[in-house]
Amino acid sequence: MHKIKTAIIGGSGYTGQELLRYLQFHKYFQLIGLSSDQHDGSSIGEVLPIFQKSFADLKFERHQAVVDSEAELFFLATPNDVSLRLVPELYERNVKIVDLSGSFRLANKERFEHFYGLDHPGEEWISKRVYGIPDIDSDRVSGQKFISNPGCYATASLIPLYGIHEVLDQLAAPIMIDAKSGVSGAGGRVSSPGMGYVDVNENFKAYKILSHQHEPEILEHLQIYAEKQLSLSFVPHLLPMSRGILVTIWLYFKDDQNENHLRQLLHRHYQDKYFIHLADPGVQVQTAHVSYTNQCHLQLTLKEDKRTVVLTSVIDNLGKGAAGQAIQNANLMLGINETEGLN
Amino acid sequence: MHKIKTAIIGGSGYTGQELLRYLQFHKYFQLIGLSSDQHDGSSIGEVLPIFQKSFADLKFERHQAVVDSEAELFFLATPNDVSLRLVPELYERNVKIVDLSGSFRLANKERFEHFYGLDHPGEEWISKRVYGIPDIDSDRVSGQKFISNPGCYATASLIPLYGIHEVLDQLAAPIMIDAKSGVSGAGGRVSSPGMGYVDVNENFKAYKILSHQHEPEILEHLQIYAEKQLSLSFVPHLLPMSRGILVTIWLYFKDDQNENHLRQLLHRHYQDKYFIHLADPGVQVQTAHVSYTNQCHLQLTLKEDKRTVVLTSVIDNLGKGAAGQAIQNANLMLGINETEGLN
Amino acid sequence: MHKIKTAIIGGSGYTGQELLRYLQFHKYFQLIGLSSDQHDGSSIGEVLPIFQKSFADLKFERHQAVVDSEAELFFLATPNDVSLRLVPELYERNVKIVDLSGSFRLANKERFEHFYGLDHPGEEWISKRVYGIPDIDSDRVSGQKFISNPGCYATASLIPLYGIHEVLDQLAAPIMIDAKSGVSGAGGRVSSPGMGYVDVNENFKAYKILSHQHEPEILEHLQIYAEKQLSLSFVPHLLPMSRGILVTIWLYFKDDQNENHLRQLLHRHYQDKYFIHLADPGVQVQTAHVSYTNQCHLQLTLKEDKRTVVLTSVIDNLGKGAAGQAIQNANLMLGINETEGLN
Amino acid sequence: MHKIKTAIIGGSGYTGQELLRYLQFHKYFQLIGLSSDQHDGSSIGEVLPIFQKSFADLKFERHQAVVDSEAELFFLATPNDVSLRLVPELYERNVKIVDLSGSFRLANKERFEHFYGLDHPGEEWISKRVYGIPDIDSDRVSGQKFISNPGCYATASLIPLYGIHEVLDQLAAPIMIDAKSGVSGAGGRVSSPGMGYVDVNENFKAYKILSHQHEPEILEHLQIYAEKQLSLSFVPHLLPMSRGILVTIWLYFKDDQNENHLRQLLHRHYQDKYFIHLADPGVQVQTAHVSYTNQCHLQLTLKEDKRTVVLTSVIDNLGKGAAGQAIQNANLMLGINETEGLN
Repeated sequence: MHKIKTAIIGGSGYTGQELLRYLQFHKYFQLIGLSSDQHDGSSIGEVLPIFQKSFADLKFERHQAVVDSEAELFFLATPNDVSLRLVPELYERNVKIVDLSGSFRLANKERFEHFYGLDHPGEEWISKRVYGIPDIDSDRVSGQKFISNPGCYATASLIPLYGIHEVLDQLAAPIMIDAKSGVSGAGGRVSSPGMGYVDVNENFKAYKILSHQHEPEILEHLQIYAEKQLSLSFVPHLLPMSRGILVTIWLYFKDDQNENHLRQLLHRHYQDKYFIHLADPGVQVQTAHVSYTNQCHLQLTLKEDKRTVVLTSVIDNLGKGAAGQAIQNANLMLGINETEGLN
Repeated sequence: MHKIKTAIIGGSGYTGQELLRYLQFHKYFQLIGLSSDQHDGSSIGEVLPIFQKSFADLKFERHQAVVDSEAELFFLATPNDVSLRLVPELYERNVKIVDLSGSFRLANKERFEHFYGLDHPGEEWISKRVYGIPDIDSDRVSGQKFISNPGCYATASLIPLYGIHEVLDQLAAPIMIDAKSGVSGAGGRVSSPGMGYVDVNENFKAYKILSHQHEPEILEHLQIYAEKQLSLSFVPHLLPMSRGILVTIWLYFKDDQNENHLRQLLHRHYQDKYFIHLADPGVQVQTAHVSYTNQCHLQLTLKEDKRTVVLTSVIDNLGKGAAGQAIQNANLMLGINETEGLN
Repeated sequence: MHKIKTAIIGGSGYTGQELLRYLQFHKYFQLIGLSSDQHDGSSIGEVLPIFQKSFADLKFERHQAVVDSEAELFFLATPNDVSLRLVPELYERNVKIVDLSGSFRLANKERFEHFYGLDHPGEEWISKRVYGIPDIDSDRVSGQKFISNPGCYATASLIPLYGIHEVLDQLAAPIMIDAKSGVSGAGGRVSSPGMGYVDVNENFKAYKILSHQHEPEILEHLQIYAEKQLSLSFVPHLLPMSRGILVTIWLYFKDDQNENHLRQLLHRHYQDKYFIHLADPGVQVQTAHVSYTNQCHLQLTLKEDKRTVVLTSVIDNLGKGAAGQAIQNANLMLGINETEGLN
Repeated sequence: MHKIKTAIIGGSGYTGQELLRYLQFHKYFQLIGLSSDQHDGSSIGEVLPIFQKSFADLKFERHQAVVDSEAELFFLATPNDVSLRLVPELYERNVKIVDLSGSFRLANKERFEHFYGLDHPGEEWISKRVYGIPDIDSDRVSGQKFISNPGCYATASLIPLYGIHEVLDQLAAPIMIDAKSGVSGAGGRVSSPGMGYVDVNENFKAYKILSHQHEPEILEHLQIYAEKQLSLSFVPHLLPMSRGILVTIWLYFKDDQNENHLRQLLHRHYQDKYFIHLADPGVQVQTAHVSYTNQCHLQLTLKEDKRTVVLTSVIDNLGKGAAGQAIQNANLMLGINETEGLN
């Protein structure tokens, strides 16, 4: 297979750096452009010393210069407003686009504008973009031109929930997602208030209780597969660590459940999925076990009351929750083995 | 008031150290004995350099030597099996006892033996001991001889739940408690498997999912105040930090709720309680805000669906969750102002 | 003794918060004013929930409003430029001033302007201010009107060095100070580049190698006590923790030294100093042992070559390195027992 | 090139895990055996879930079973006493051996027995083993049969010191190495006293001041290249982080030095070395920049006095300081490109 000329728009943030980390090992994606309006003209080594050997010849350019390059595959690791501006321009051309921002995730105009405080890109984009978790939606993603890459919390939540979606119409209460993220997954830029070292270290808190933008994202996508209307609540928390997400999903059923049956549902959906692993009964999943990987580890526990189920799921928010999944999606878009560059 | 001769049995663990920290400032509790079978004969300064000035003359002795001392007030910061052995001996004498272990918390024999793997002390002890959170149970605690000091998770859970216990009979699903604790509150001794620095740092996991011994402890005590039989599920998680607990309590009601009404219930129960603070709407409670204190901060959020309520509660697991509460209980047992030594 | 009306200018930063923490317990310093231009009008509880009970009635005011109050004692926990502006105004009045900024620490105009990038306050201020570590300079501090409170690195370095200053004229090489600080002592404001959580966590680096402003501060003050001209080099490092400083001081002597003699020098200087502790031989000092205290713990090790000496010293940069020392200085200025409020 | 059958003795510790991490990507080293007396019979996935996909078919066996396998290349990530026992047995056979323990590092019998408390393997082993840092000693390592892999502190110290070894005979004082390591490089096993999470978190301390076993290791190897007898002192410190080492080396010269000249020496030695990077003047090296890599980043600063030089050096103690370097050595032993598997 020929090398695919690849560009990263927004390469100096956490997600951009993680794309670089994976692209070091990809056989077919050849990085030819990397942008950062802030670091325009700097070599990678000056900004990100860890990559000075792998990408010795590459310099940061301005976003527009890289947009105008001859790249065939674009990863957008940009703020929402930048993605909203650049995607329509790129879409006109014969290129593949993976947008890692939140701009095209929600399909509902009012919801988007409420949660993002930005104008909705227009409903015609709903049919143009595919929102896809490749381990769930591989058919939807394969060969596509424009993928909206799911949010980190949404990914960690949708994988376990999709794995038992056949029984979710039997719930007696909303799906309750108690999510916990390291700083890099919780919008933790240096300049963000409350994200300084002393604020986060030896501290733990919830934030955006029942009002986080990933709540509708999870529900919209889960609804595609559900028999009937679901309801769902989401509370995120900020962990004193740099990377890693664990979600604890609380389900309360109308009737008695069978743990083996539920585990078999998960098994059926994921036994052939390279990146998804259902832990043996009683073994607890841990964020460190998936750190710097594109994996998702799952556990399911049924209470003695037979009606309460707890699902736990761990991912690396920058890996499976962002850059890893973006590359997995790009592999599927281009007909490459989905594990390429991710192992 | 005269000084009360005070002893700590088990003074070198985290809880024992925290008792020492508070006792430095207590006007009436005069520490005359401190035990550690391991450190018998060592000065406090040798084992705990931070206290070398405050308790310059005190040495660690063997447990039995301190049990046999002339102390009038005993804090037991001992493993469960040691408390089970020493409490009956102390109880025969004219002394006050605060047991910080789990040995006398549960009132049901089978439950205790299932969760603790130890023989139940016998049901006669249920009437002898008072299990008490002083901010809830001050009348039950005042003047008592023997207090079983509540567990850290139980304290962080019971304070918010008791604060709205009047409406808990209207739930459509069990109370679901998603709890997160720093290492010192999660049994994090050096020798515990999985509690080494590299295991915990940059890692997060759930443990004892739906099978932690604090689940029945919370339910038993809450049931005292409830109109009808409640059900409750509990999942603890291990945070990469040394101290601090946050619990997120998920409630799903049969009927619409009114947020102001729920906040008024909390306000009514706690407005006169020095150590309990209900945060203003929208302000998130954080473990760092109660670190090294005996305080508990609460928040309540009602979802737009009017039926989902999320309570969050933070304490210092060694403060309000152990040593601070023990001293507050001891103050009430001895008729002293409950804030003495804790401010 | 009557209560002394006390004000903190700049009360919302780390140092201001630490002053508040200590003032909760001070018998004679009554906080009547607290300023923050940013938080003007907010209650303490809104900005710093941990203090909502201790200082329930106090509100943040603008700097100037508090400067104009009837306070008798002013702690300035302000940026250098603010201290440079406010100290002369306060000095005209019959008040006591403790300046915790760096503005008045250096006695040499060129050095100050080089390291601080600000105009030197003028040499007349050198005679007006006393730069004082109370455990070394109690005679110089007692009864004074205006104290320049030493820097955190300088404090951690000067205490061990002064303790053996009698032999420092026998060095064969400069004093080499390898200093390590937690983020709150290294200028770690939220907005500082490189001080975000992800930047600092799981990372360690040196900074301002051989060019930090505390190098001349240490040398200037040590020189007061030295027989002859000393030379000294200083390299600070940033630790992934919130608070705590350890300095490792490397000394290489022309002739053989005797460890007992050196320990006796330290002992002689500090045996009566409540806050200074020389660890027993072989016991390593640790930052956690002095965390949240005004203590300094020291260790001295002589190598088998008899000529290499390593001193280690730990303090809490916000305690002994800032707020604790400031209160200790204020106690001496006002004739109060130096340990008041600090125990 | 054919695949080389490779075994790891002691595969469940930190160093063994890091060897596994690198071997996932090595083209020529095919892992056929992995031992752990503790985990005998377990699959990799059970013990180390992160590797369950990469080495799905491999099980842990007992040490002796793997020693007796048909492997051609053995990595020993074993305790010192186990290496001392197994190396002589393996040496009799036609295999390559890389010992990552400390057992064969020191060439002097008395020194070894003093620092390790074990019987010296005998001086004949000094000629059999090569102690080698591949970036310094590639000629000594190439084609060899048995390599003693250098210690982590020694590696981080020797790379900068060798880089200017031509001027070290002009020192006016001993080389002073102030070293700081994350827990995994400082012997931080779960069971080690003082290595629990609460002990290490928010804490910093020196240990084994002037008495660490890496001091003679550094000196012995540096002496090979030195013109005259050197002297050297070493103080290690424990950082509150999992991985990463920074050493700060203090040099004091008899005469004035020229910074450009010193930088040119470093440049000359390392410009062709893929894994060694001299930072631009003023840029500070950071442990995070080499985390999970086999790189070493260096900085050199000359003081205005022209006689004081500070070298800083960072490595990942598990990468360049252990497993990465072991693989680099093995590559050279087998005539493979030294960067294979390490990029």
